[in-house]
Amino acid sequence: MAIEGRSERFSGRIRLGMVGGGQGAFIGAVHRIAARLDDRYEFVAGALSSDPARAKASAAELGLKEDRSYGSFEEMAKREGRIKDGIEAVAIVTPNHMHFPVAKAFLSRGIHVICDKPMTTTLRDAKKLAALVQKSGKVFALTHNYTGYPMIRQARAMVAGGELGTIRLVHANYVQDWLTTKMEDTGLKQAEWRTDPARSGAGGAIGDIGTHAYNLACFVSGLDAESLSADLTTFVPGRRLDDNVHVMLRYPGGGRGMIWASQVAPGNENNLTLKVYGDKGGLEWAQEDPNYLWFAPFGEPKRLITRSGAGSNDAAGRVTRVPPGHPEGYLEGFANVYSEAAEAIIAARSGGKPDAAVHFPTVEDGVKGVAFIEACLKSSGRNAAWVKL
Amino acid sequence: MAIEGRSERFSGRIRLGMVGGGQGAFIGAVHRIAARLDDRYEFVAGALSSDPARAKASAAELGLKEDRSYGSFEEMAKREGRIKDGIEAVAIVTPNHMHFPVAKAFLSRGIHVICDKPMTTTLRDAKKLAALVQKSGKVFALTHNYTGYPMIRQARAMVAGGELGTIRLVHANYVQDWLTTKMEDTGLKQAEWRTDPARSGAGGAIGDIGTHAYNLACFVSGLDAESLSADLTTFVPGRRLDDNVHVMLRYPGGGRGMIWASQVAPGNENNLTLKVYGDKGGLEWAQEDPNYLWFAPFGEPKRLITRSGAGSNDAAGRVTRVPPGHPEGYLEGFANVYSEAAEAIIAARSGGKPDAAVHFPTVEDGVKGVAFIEACLKSSGRNAAWVKL
Amino acid sequence: MAIEGRSERFSGRIRLGMVGGGQGAFIGAVHRIAARLDDRYEFVAGALSSDPARAKASAAELGLKEDRSYGSFEEMAKREGRIKDGIEAVAIVTPNHMHFPVAKAFLSRGIHVICDKPMTTTLRDAKKLAALVQKSGKVFALTHNYTGYPMIRQARAMVAGGELGTIRLVHANYVQDWLTTKMEDTGLKQAEWRTDPARSGAGGAIGDIGTHAYNLACFVSGLDAESLSADLTTFVPGRRLDDNVHVMLRYPGGGRGMIWASQVAPGNENNLTLKVYGDKGGLEWAQEDPNYLWFAPFGEPKRLITRSGAGSNDAAGRVTRVPPGHPEGYLEGFANVYSEAAEAIIAARSGGKPDAAVHFPTVEDGVKGVAFIEACLKSSGRNAAWVKL
Amino acid sequence: MAIEGRSERFSGRIRLGMVGGGQGAFIGAVHRIAARLDDRYEFVAGALSSDPARAKASAAELGLKEDRSYGSFEEMAKREGRIKDGIEAVAIVTPNHMHFPVAKAFLSRGIHVICDKPMTTTLRDAKKLAALVQKSGKVFALTHNYTGYPMIRQARAMVAGGELGTIRLVHANYVQDWLTTKMEDTGLKQAEWRTDPARSGAGGAIGDIGTHAYNLACFVSGLDAESLSADLTTFVPGRRLDDNVHVMLRYPGGGRGMIWASQVAPGNENNLTLKVYGDKGGLEWAQEDPNYLWFAPFGEPKRLITRSGAGSNDAAGRVTRVPPGHPEGYLEGFANVYSEAAEAIIAARSGGKPDAAVHFPTVEDGVKGVAFIEACLKSSGRNAAWVKL
Repeated sequence: MAIEGRSERFSGRIRLGMVGGGQGAFIGAVHRIAARLDDRYEFVAGALSSDPARAKASAAELGLKEDRSYGSFEEMAKREGRIKDGIEAVAIVTPNHMHFPVAKAFLSRGIHVICDKPMTTTLRDAKKLAALVQKSGKVFALTHNYTGYPMIRQARAMVAGGELGTIRLVHANYVQDWLTTKMEDTGLKQAEWRTDPARSGAGGAIGDIGTHAYNLACFVSGLDAESLSADLTTFVPGRRLDDNVHVMLRYPGGGRGMIWASQVAPGNENNLTLKVYGDKGGLEWAQEDPNYLWFAPFGEPKRLITRSGAGSNDAAGRVTRVPPGHPEGYLEGFANVYSEAAEAIIAARSGGKPDAAVHFPTVEDGVKGVAFIEACLKSSGRNAAWVKL
Repeated sequence: MAIEGRSERFSGRIRLGMVGGGQGAFIGAVHRIAARLDDRYEFVAGALSSDPARAKASAAELGLKEDRSYGSFEEMAKREGRIKDGIEAVAIVTPNHMHFPVAKAFLSRGIHVICDKPMTTTLRDAKKLAALVQKSGKVFALTHNYTGYPMIRQARAMVAGGELGTIRLVHANYVQDWLTTKMEDTGLKQAEWRTDPARSGAGGAIGDIGTHAYNLACFVSGLDAESLSADLTTFVPGRRLDDNVHVMLRYPGGGRGMIWASQVAPGNENNLTLKVYGDKGGLEWAQEDPNYLWFAPFGEPKRLITRSGAGSNDAAGRVTRVPPGHPEGYLEGFANVYSEAAEAIIAARSGGKPDAAVHFPTVEDGVKGVAFIEACLKSSGRNAAWVKL
Repeated sequence: MAIEGRSERFSGRIRLGMVGGGQGAFIGAVHRIAARLDDRYEFVAGALSSDPARAKASAAELGLKEDRSYGSFEEMAKREGRIKDGIEAVAIVTPNHMHFPVAKAFLSRGIHVICDKPMTTTLRDAKKLAALVQKSGKVFALTHNYTGYPMIRQARAMVAGGELGTIRLVHANYVQDWLTTKMEDTGLKQAEWRTDPARSGAGGAIGDIGTHAYNLACFVSGLDAESLSADLTTFVPGRRLDDNVHVMLRYPGGGRGMIWASQVAPGNENNLTLKVYGDKGGLEWAQEDPNYLWFAPFGEPKRLITRSGAGSNDAAGRVTRVPPGHPEGYLEGFANVYSEAAEAIIAARSGGKPDAAVHFPTVEDGVKGVAFIEACLKSSGRNAAWVKL
Repeated sequence: MAIEGRSERFSGRIRLGMVGGGQGAFIGAVHRIAARLDDRYEFVAGALSSDPARAKASAAELGLKEDRSYGSFEEMAKREGRIKDGIEAVAIVTPNHMHFPVAKAFLSRGIHVICDKPMTTTLRDAKKLAALVQKSGKVFALTHNYTGYPMIRQARAMVAGGELGTIRLVHANYVQDWLTTKMEDTGLKQAEWRTDPARSGAGGAIGDIGTHAYNLACFVSGLDAESLSADLTTFVPGRRLDDNVHVMLRYPGGGRGMIWASQVAPGNENNLTLKVYGDKGGLEWAQEDPNYLWFAPFGEPKRLITRSGAGSNDAAGRVTRVPPGHPEGYLEGFANVYSEAAEAIIAARSGGKPDAAVHFPTVEDGVKGVAFIEACLKSSGRNAAWVKL
């Protein structure tokens, strides 16, 4: 039970604003809890909806001061960039098509950005954004939140430490069922924008969840795929974007991988799984039961490593809050991204860098994710021909 | 996915103080996160350790203002009860023997209390405290946190709604392994006070975890046991309190139950499980995988009900934050106790009562828990004779 | 994959007869398959029912020669004991009350016995039978079939080898739901005789499944309980025998145990589980998933040992037939009892003893089982007072 | 518990011979047990090894009469086809390259064939064999044994009955780890021939286990793929055949599928899983835990259907031997293929056909399996181009 745990060392809360995330938006509340969990942020301003009335109502409900509630992100960026005690960081939780313009507006006012994924709707924008971030010197964190799970950190450290030997196979699946029927016609906002190319970009399941799977595969294996062959399908009649994705991957050095992302597989909620196999051992993890990590050293019985239990390593320990056998979940993992970004933001206050152990997905990961989506779309458009990444 | 979820409706944060929970105390951090999660509390004052120097250091680390950091709980109660904007509620997270005096001190200043369990070290004190609470008219919440899990709320509502028929059997186990060896001699504070009768009370495993199991059994089944037969054992040589407990229970109307609590069962972390069987169906739940509830209507296939998934009910929904397949954990359940207590505290500001659906363990539950401990000790002392509850 | 496996070395089949097990009797078919699986027996004679007409019809259906089909066990014992090529062994698969007279009849003709459990309906008979067996010099095998599972053999060898250290706790549960309602009134033969004291003996659930749990606990732990406290209940109105049993156990040297046997817990089929904890480690096993054994060396991650996989030992290997990952089940475990008994019978042909590694439950285990039942009945009759075993 | 179960109605045993399966060959023993389990066959003759000395020794060990033990299959086919009471059926359990010539030899003598998979090493041979079978009018059963599991029968019947709606996705994986290192150099016979193109054919993992996965996918979904894209890999240096296979599938009507077969994924023994999703529900099954079937009707909680438990259907019931909660395994499933083939052989004795409910994989399934292997090899050779089936 040697949990180092998240330090509670208090360094003053980071003033945080939010764009998007008003009433009816599930992910906004998640970001707010994640920001609050370790007491690293203070939520003080927002442009919570593209609909100004809803934006105001949402802000009031959340206890924002009236003069820090904005009708548009442009207005917010302009004023917050100027006032004393304006926000230091902004969380962008809008539909995908707004990520780029919003991030740009805040970065240009010297405000750090925490942004939802996929980062942009085109690879061109992604690259532009990467350049902007670099120029700005600001912190940019992408909420590939699954990288925040302690057992995922453990897995990554084990792979990096050679415990699996040379990696041969990486399998990542993200399987859901919520779009099995035409939910976008029922008035459910979540379904509406996610199946609308204008707001979601050209990828459906591939953009919404396929990127998470690919990101996790890269994060843990330490490998980027070299090329891929993808078969995207739209099963629900009338749907405008893909709702099922099969991808075969090739890695430099001969490794192979597979990704399956689906929104139409009844019985699956957020069934994100990762399996990594090397010539010395294998690892298996499932998001719905995230406090466990199976480790199979070849030729020995499988071990079930539990979060903060015997066998859990430092990489897991530093993002862990409670003792073994007390489950942590989605919000804690999400909060780890926020709290790690906070380390970077706090270090940046004095022009420094955070501790080397700090990790959060960056704008570079965002570029990779969008490149992955575009490659899948291209491959699928060419009858699953191999496309370089 | 009809999650009502925890409302984010903001009503001003409750000013919260804490007694205990300084450096090295695991449970203090848990209470602070739980208080913060739904943004219902603002942590502003503390007497964080019985050691004044450690109290100050801890307070500084946590960002408390210097004049709200106290060297003793008496001083804190006195001053906070007097100053403008003094705390409205106090969280008591000390070893067990301090719960009663601390609670008394704050209640007498009109301050609401959120207290760790077991409530007191004697049944006499427990009853006195119940009388004090009643007289004070203040909110008293006991952190039997496992009642805060959504699937436990679901289970309770299902039993109450008759979905299991007449209850016949209630089995609750809480099994750990962390005291398999003599950890109290290694300098681990957690182990030290928990095995010390002066600080823990006369119960070891029975008080620390047996009460949780019993509380959960009562909470879900809606039944209080009538009598019990207990066999308490101390396996580790030199240990001063029981580390394993077997209890047989009898319920009014003929129901039967069992409780097994252990701290010496290698391979078990916080393996708290509950099984309830009626003449129409059964329910099974495990704390380490808390987002699942097995429901077996007699003569039909078992169903796996998932938190906020199809089949989850309103009782679960109102304490749920994220969609199905995204796991919630220990901290979220703990936060539910805090946030429900907050509803009561907010209602009390205007002399009212919270919504009927609000639930948190009360001083009466605390009395029951201590009565259970005493009955187990008495029974075990008489060679497991049946003792009335 | 170093499976030694069951040897197929052929030594001539043992001529086997059966008493009971005619049409409508589930367990007869199980015994026949178990006998046949390793080609150690040839089924040649039977008195398959106490109803002579049904006996004949059953025999015909199973392909027995007409002159080897008997209307009564007495007739069968007499003739088979006399004829050339008469049976060498008899399987007794009748309701409990017939085990003793049938076994006696065949033993007295020098015929080996394979008998269902519980061995007899009274401890007096059990002891008499033990004396008869001893005098006869014949093989007597009791089909506590769960001891035949490879992972149970593995567990026993691990305990014996000290891998768990000193045993502190032994928990065995056998939980079913098939008697949740009054099945004995529906014409189901299985339920009828099992709830009838005249045929089942004075124990219901305790005799039918409680003994299995206790036998398994003894077999794996290598310990016999010293005393017990039992609370037997009959939940279904009008039922004549217990359908739920709670037992607390005390072992010599201070160990503790629990047994829970139930036939009224909806959602449980044949949920027999065993947990054994020592001061160095723990083991957990479940009959419904019998190819797995959890091993938790204290302070290390849990290992999932799989049947014939890495980490499985010789004790498991010698009763294993197929490679890891190919499940074996109930019939294979049952067959192990038969095939091990066959080793003893074959050795007995030449006046010898089987290999030391051969194991099957004996008449002594039968005595222990009946003693356990009687002690539970006695304890429960005295309000769960402690009774010596 | 309405288990119809395998009828024990005895119709005289079928005289069975075996080619291959001598000492050191795992699968021979499996076939012998499978044949024996339901007492439908009598094993009377064999050419148990291509090495005549080993053939004789193996036959002696298994108790075959000396004059029914042959040094070659040709000799055996010739004599057994001629003698009175010669074998009626032969089991072929040789390496793959011998399946065709052996089957041909026995079929031409009017002897029924039960043959291991893959059926032949080339599609040309497979088609020739299909023609021979048709001409002969004899029974030909292919031991795709996984189709014999009761829950697989249940799944197939559920799909056929429309309980899943229109099938959209079929995922079958067969994952092992036993060839993670170069086992073929260690003297292990199983590994030697399976990695030798001369004996195994041109497919490694794809032929040995990929065909099983594909067969199961077809069997349950009722669909044959239209085209596929395959990426075959050999990870272990110096190995001559593929040891990992990724396949994307397209079904008529727009369905999609995936197959992953691997022999190099540490921690996987015989991890064969099947997932089928339609627009109304999903099914999931795992070979290592074969007595369970997950059924998720869209919008309802998942149900865990257990073998012979509530919710299990007639298709499962007729191949089930024991009550719910008593696990059946690999050998029982394998025996179902044998016993169903026996029904056909017995019916054929009088020129008839077995009951319509009888199912076993046939020569047509064998042709499909070999076609699948060849298509995978072709696709992989063309950089995973789509190949028609």
